[in-house]
Amino acid sequence: MDGPELHLDIATVCLSGTLEDKLAAAGAAGFDGVEIFEHDLVVSPWSLREVRARCADLGLSIDLYQPFRDFEAVPPDVLAANLRRAERKFDVMEQLGVDTVLVCSSVSPDAVDDDDLAAEQLHALACRAADRGIRIAYEALAWGRFVNTYEHSWRIVRRGDHPALGLCLDSFHVLSRGSDIAGIRVIPGSRIFFLQLADAPRLRMDVLQWSRHHRLFPGQGAFDLTAFTGTVVATGYDGPVSLEVFNDVFRQADPARTAVDAMRSLLLLREDIATTGPVRVRDRMGVADLPAAPQPTGYAFCELTTAGSGAPDPTPVLAGLGFVHMGQDESSSARLWQQGDARIVVRTTGFGGVRIGALGVETPDPAVAARRAERLLAPTDSGGGADPAVTAPDGVTLVFCRPGSDWTADFTAAEPSAVHTCGITGIDHVSLTEPFDDFDRTALFYRAALGLRPEPETEFAAPFGLIRSRSATDRDRRIRIALNVAALRRGDWAPAVPDPQHIAFTSEDVVASARAMRALGAPLLDIPDNYYDDLDARFALPLGRLASLRECSVLYDQDEHGEFLHFYTHMLGSHLFFEVVQRIGGYQGYGAVNSPVRMAAHRQFRLTREAADRPDPRPR
Amino acid sequence: MDGPELHLDIATVCLSGTLEDKLAAAGAAGFDGVEIFEHDLVVSPWSLREVRARCADLGLSIDLYQPFRDFEAVPPDVLAANLRRAERKFDVMEQLGVDTVLVCSSVSPDAVDDDDLAAEQLHALACRAADRGIRIAYEALAWGRFVNTYEHSWRIVRRGDHPALGLCLDSFHVLSRGSDIAGIRVIPGSRIFFLQLADAPRLRMDVLQWSRHHRLFPGQGAFDLTAFTGTVVATGYDGPVSLEVFNDVFRQADPARTAVDAMRSLLLLREDIATTGPVRVRDRMGVADLPAAPQPTGYAFCELTTAGSGAPDPTPVLAGLGFVHMGQDESSSARLWQQGDARIVVRTTGFGGVRIGALGVETPDPAVAARRAERLLAPTDSGGGADPAVTAPDGVTLVFCRPGSDWTADFTAAEPSAVHTCGITGIDHVSLTEPFDDFDRTALFYRAALGLRPEPETEFAAPFGLIRSRSATDRDRRIRIALNVAALRRGDWAPAVPDPQHIAFTSEDVVASARAMRALGAPLLDIPDNYYDDLDARFALPLGRLASLRECSVLYDQDEHGEFLHFYTHMLGSHLFFEVVQRIGGYQGYGAVNSPVRMAAHRQFRLTREAADRPDPRPR
Repeated sequence: MDGPELHLDIATVCLSGTLEDKLAAAGAAGFDGVEIFEHDLVVSPWSLREVRARCADLGLSIDLYQPFRDFEAVPPDVLAANLRRAERKFDVMEQLGVDTVLVCSSVSPDAVDDDDLAAEQLHALACRAADRGIRIAYEALAWGRFVNTYEHSWRIVRRGDHPALGLCLDSFHVLSRGSDIAGIRVIPGSRIFFLQLADAPRLRMDVLQWSRHHRLFPGQGAFDLTAFTGTVVATGYDGPVSLEVFNDVFRQADPARTAVDAMRSLLLLREDIATTGPVRVRDRMGVADLPAAPQPTGYAFCELTTAGSGAPDPTPVLAGLGFVHMGQDESSSARLWQQGDARIVVRTTGFGGVRIGALGVETPDPAVAARRAERLLAPTDSGGGADPAVTAPDGVTLVFCRPGSDWTADFTAAEPSAVHTCGITGIDHVSLTEPFDDFDRTALFYRAALGLRPEPETEFAAPFGLIRSRSATDRDRRIRIALNVAALRRGDWAPAVPDPQHIAFTSEDVVASARAMRALGAPLLDIPDNYYDDLDARFALPLGRLASLRECSVLYDQDEHGEFLHFYTHMLGSHLFFEVVQRIGGYQGYGAVNSPVRMAAHRQFRLTREAADRPDPRPR
Repeated sequence: MDGPELHLDIATVCLSGTLEDKLAAAGAAGFDGVEIFEHDLVVSPWSLREVRARCADLGLSIDLYQPFRDFEAVPPDVLAANLRRAERKFDVMEQLGVDTVLVCSSVSPDAVDDDDLAAEQLHALACRAADRGIRIAYEALAWGRFVNTYEHSWRIVRRGDHPALGLCLDSFHVLSRGSDIAGIRVIPGSRIFFLQLADAPRLRMDVLQWSRHHRLFPGQGAFDLTAFTGTVVATGYDGPVSLEVFNDVFRQADPARTAVDAMRSLLLLREDIATTGPVRVRDRMGVADLPAAPQPTGYAFCELTTAGSGAPDPTPVLAGLGFVHMGQDESSSARLWQQGDARIVVRTTGFGGVRIGALGVETPDPAVAARRAERLLAPTDSGGGADPAVTAPDGVTLVFCRPGSDWTADFTAAEPSAVHTCGITGIDHVSLTEPFDDFDRTALFYRAALGLRPEPETEFAAPFGLIRSRSATDRDRRIRIALNVAALRRGDWAPAVPDPQHIAFTSEDVVASARAMRALGAPLLDIPDNYYDDLDARFALPLGRLASLRECSVLYDQDEHGEFLHFYTHMLGSHLFFEVVQRIGGYQGYGAVNSPVRMAAHRQFRLTREAADRPDPRPR
């Protein structure tokens, strides 16, 4: 099929702030056009002429005015008032220069269940609209009183039989009802006047509340937007593809960031359709300039930043875990530590606590990987040295390295430090902690930039609130990134960082590793006896094995595929700790069930230390 | 009916933090006992002996160990493992000195739908429990796989037929299913082993998610806990009444504050049962020491605090609204301004921005009202001068004044200020803005302390996020308090105070008031033209009327009872503005539909002013 490339739109209702804020954000993120939400206009001090001029300045077409509600299937007096209201809105549209208005299926108590009447009244509206050069895009709300499926709205549009009367399809309204999208294939593309996209998590709740609070950009939820969008475009529809997404977070987040996240989701959606969608529409996706996703082969390194003197220093802990100091860079600000294939760069930046500052990812063509990330709107980062790098939305530098490349040659060999290997063989996963509001966009970014696949999301009750955890990994599970978030985090009760970052190393025998590290003086976290009594009640492990877990403060989990053994260090400052893990059999999780135990133990250790640091109040 | 007074418990799972934090909070709030949640114990470094000793020190009995899950109706090998697990937990209970364990109806894929088998296996469990002096309280989870109503769990308990096997009733599990509580009346009180209470908002969503994220303390949701609790107690049940409440907020909030909120909700529930519950149980409520709710007759005054020199000063605005300076107190730190029956005290405190610091409420017996508030765990406040006062959870001082009392005599008459009355007749409502996490407890407190009734909650999309609004009023609508909250508020986009506090004055002709105030130079807020064009489209108001609203920037709303006209001042600092309202007919709302218009206009004004304040960058 031939046809123009997609015209990418965003609805102003997706973005927080006033109309000025929203238009500026949409323009800066590179959108082609906008839907203007009526209420954004009503509260704006700008005249319609000013709005129109501003959009033109920003290169944004105004493609839809929305919404017009509760129009059809009403008694004559209500119809008269509705037509009067519509004419007023046509006046607004004329001045804005927008030719399509969204009419949602009615939720009004005035409406009756009569398709013929609905079609007749929509026909009357279309006649008046056509006189003004305007088209009516009729949409079935998923909670419409009588019309709540796209099939039903299409029957009414056909019966209404007017060239200025067509359909608006919104993926949320279609997919939240579980409708079969195959029926879209019988609708001529020319009768679809507008296409709105929203993803959402699969929730079992009232569909209006689900829509109002939980919509997400494509790729962030559970809907198959690739199939939906591909099917609509395959009808011959050549109008805008527009995001219609709102949720509690977007309503209050910086619109510039939301707009970038939105555009990134559309770029990925286009790529996905170009790869897996209907053959006839692939050429219309315009993705020639988006390089293919990299195929990461492992972690090259993980870099910790630290403030330097006076701040917590990770190097004694690394030494305690059996890492060897391999060398330092020219400026002496970065030191390389290694054990097995686990490489940690410790960089002194002069500010901040200890945090994960950069991830080195091995991939066959680093330059292509970086170009892809930049095309996905990630800023270029100079932090990678000779290797190309970008900045992730959470501020972490993503460095792309060729496998086996000699980036370690940058580090002058150190004085040989004592070698006490403790069985660490590599990096299993890196866990980053995101602010709640950044969770979805950060997760989408890492998946998009690294070509990772999402793993099932988990949520668990921790001592200071709910923690949600989402991870992603490549097909061979060489790169695992876990993102954790506190479901709420406010007020001054509880730790400022409820679930800090961590790096998890692999060992083939964690009990032996723990013993060797304790002998080296590593600050490993003690786990309470009560935990092991409960473990006994739950799993009835062999007594000797339970005893060695208890002795070494190693935690345990199992799933249908295998077992997971792991232990932790104390906190390094307030943002970071290390973990050592052993996967037995096909266990694929991260031991989330034990995270609350770890959090309580970290808190207990801190309280004990604080108590010890306090001057003794007793008289001497 | 005779019987002991209620024994008030709280489950440790209601409270955030570690077991130490939770027990300390429960003890400090005056609870009689606790349910201990297994996971709190598992993560605790305290031995069981230490936990038992700590509870004894705090005067807390340990009344329930919970939960034991997925026990019944399973194949023999699973039963054997479950019995082993139970014996381990009985060991724990013995050491803790707790004699009742909660067993939840199964959600396990191992379970089968066989009531006889469930009863038989629970009987076996009860036999073993009885040998250890332990009782089994079997509870139907609302999402139990086969057993999910209390009627069903009661059939199984009867069939299980063992004196150590009884029921646990949890109001959430019963009421979320819409079960008829009349069936509880046929259960002998002696077979109910435990009673758990939770309220919740009425939501249409998956019941497990509803339970996990949205439980509330009694009186904060939509369930009729008075009827439920009264019905259970009327069976002769004489065990603890225990709160089993968790939600996203409580999981991360200071447990000391949560525990006080919890106790307050139980005190009110007891009062409600003593007033309206089954006659037979009223004597058991032990509410003789809780004075009856006051019957407020109006606002005596509203006090604004201001930092003084350099800080925003409300007095020129009050003068512009036509208020008259009546006098000042001895220390000259407080000045009284009056118009009609609206009295505003402006107190200079030397710190903070302009905020509502105190509300003076007229009530026939101020001393009794204050005693009631104190019994409801509100701290006494010395801020009321000669009048008794308490501090609300949001820090506002609540001062109780006798109607027509001469508290204004404290204010020395001022030099007569110019008198330009602008038609203000009194205070219509006061709107306080709460942090999200304080919303439910603050709302409960005001209702409890002032004897107010809740009005319907509203939620609306504002330019910087969703706003939820809840108001309460007395029977005669003389005191109206609105509490507004931002559904989320994080990050640095958008105003720090998304919806500031305000005081709304009444006028019998707001258009005339607005004109008079503009003539006096009052800083009234301009409303955009687009708003009036939309008003025309929506309501088709007579043209003259629309013109005068537009001219005076007066906003409009209507409901089935009447009309609402209102206008606003600019912001005073970042926390406060004034409103003038006119209610025509029986309109009972607060014009929430217009709040987003006001918020955008406030922001627009601030941006314009900031732009004007910036030095002109052009060369001269």
